[in-house]
Amino acid sequence: MTSEIKQLQHQLAQFAAERNWEQFHSPKNLAMALSGEVGELIEIFQWLTPEQSEQLPASKQAHLEEEVADVLMYLLRLADKCDIDVMQACQQKLAKNRQKYPADKCYGSAKKYNEL
Amino acid sequence: MTSEIKQLQHQLAQFAAERNWEQFHSPKNLAMALSGEVGELIEIFQWLTPEQSEQLPASKQAHLEEEVADVLMYLLRLADKCDIDVMQACQQKLAKNRQKYPADKCYGSAKKYNEL
Amino acid sequence: MTSEIKQLQHQLAQFAAERNWEQFHSPKNLAMALSGEVGELIEIFQWLTPEQSEQLPASKQAHLEEEVADVLMYLLRLADKCDIDVMQACQQKLAKNRQKYPADKCYGSAKKYNEL
Amino acid sequence: MTSEIKQLQHQLAQFAAERNWEQFHSPKNLAMALSGEVGELIEIFQWLTPEQSEQLPASKQAHLEEEVADVLMYLLRLADKCDIDVMQACQQKLAKNRQKYPADKCYGSAKKYNEL
Repeated sequence: MTSEIKQLQHQLAQFAAERNWEQFHSPKNLAMALSGEVGELIEIFQWLTPEQSEQLPASKQAHLEEEVADVLMYLLRLADKCDIDVMQACQQKLAKNRQKYPADKCYGSAKKYNEL
Repeated sequence: MTSEIKQLQHQLAQFAAERNWEQFHSPKNLAMALSGEVGELIEIFQWLTPEQSEQLPASKQAHLEEEVADVLMYLLRLADKCDIDVMQACQQKLAKNRQKYPADKCYGSAKKYNEL
Repeated sequence: MTSEIKQLQHQLAQFAAERNWEQFHSPKNLAMALSGEVGELIEIFQWLTPEQSEQLPASKQAHLEEEVADVLMYLLRLADKCDIDVMQACQQKLAKNRQKYPADKCYGSAKKYNEL
Repeated sequence: MTSEIKQLQHQLAQFAAERNWEQFHSPKNLAMALSGEVGELIEIFQWLTPEQSEQLPASKQAHLEEEVADVLMYLLRLADKCDIDVMQACQQKLAKNRQKYPADKCYGSAKKYNEL
């Protein structure tokens, strides 16, 4: 069974191929496109208080959904081009984070691991 | 059956809860953390040619895998907090992109839809 | 009299030339480097409340000063390579913003000009 | 004599005050706004080759000028709010960079100082 992520990556590759956009999709360019989309996402929140950001009005919520999708699609496209299994990469990073941030040592603290 | 993405989101919520980090995870803050991680990802590629970015040396590849994981984990955490079904959001955006970028009209062109 | 900004741009060009780094300083690459540095800057603030961000502890203040410098130096280097007079560009944008955001219409509002 | 940068910072503070926008201009929010503008700037270059980025067509050049201005204005506003003398910060960082990157050691190399 193909995972939902790999299915989406396949769709994205096809979308690019049908438009002859492979030529633009170097990892370097995809990293830039990803960064541009994150810029649009962050704009949604820039003047909101943290509390307001928890309760977006419907128009901002719809906008956020689109930006989340854009960010995710460029990220998965980049990972695909670079042969990265994103789910495996997350599990490895999560295991590393568990070691860097033991629950008892960083409970309730926003400090970086090297400041703990 | 729970999807692999929802499973990961559940792990991330648990990771935060065990550390009492929920208090820091407003959508606004998560958007900033996402943006910071994308900054680290883009750094990997900044001085490389597009061609070099296609063939990363092993140390950069390992670094990229970590940054991709960091970006994805913050993105999924943000989506979870904002009740966004990321797979559905991607399918909706992809359908929209198909309309904005008809294959015959934008074949081989990097122009934005409003410049086509 | 050369302006302080042009003097700094001259220093930065010299710094690059002495290291034979001109080859890396395409506008594309400089835009990426700029983005990477902004990622480091935003990280300083990500878990802080807006109130905390007004009163940084000394170590974060010193870090912020470095990141502000890094961002400004890449921005000025980029502008220099692209023949942009930054002070003139700011005055033009400021004039445009005065028209887009008339004080009486947007007083106390964080809405975008097209939502006013 | 007031420097050109301090004059601009004064204009920006006045622009905000006239609109009662001071309330939105916490350093945290300004860092987000800065990041959003850099996202718009990077978008200009994302699909261009490094060579194309050296010779922007007129419409992209005009767009870039606006984005450079937006980035610079948010950066200077942030620095002003955080009592950072940007020119001094740049000179200090430049001095530090001269030590981290001795010309003979990093001539023609894009490696980071800790990889040299």
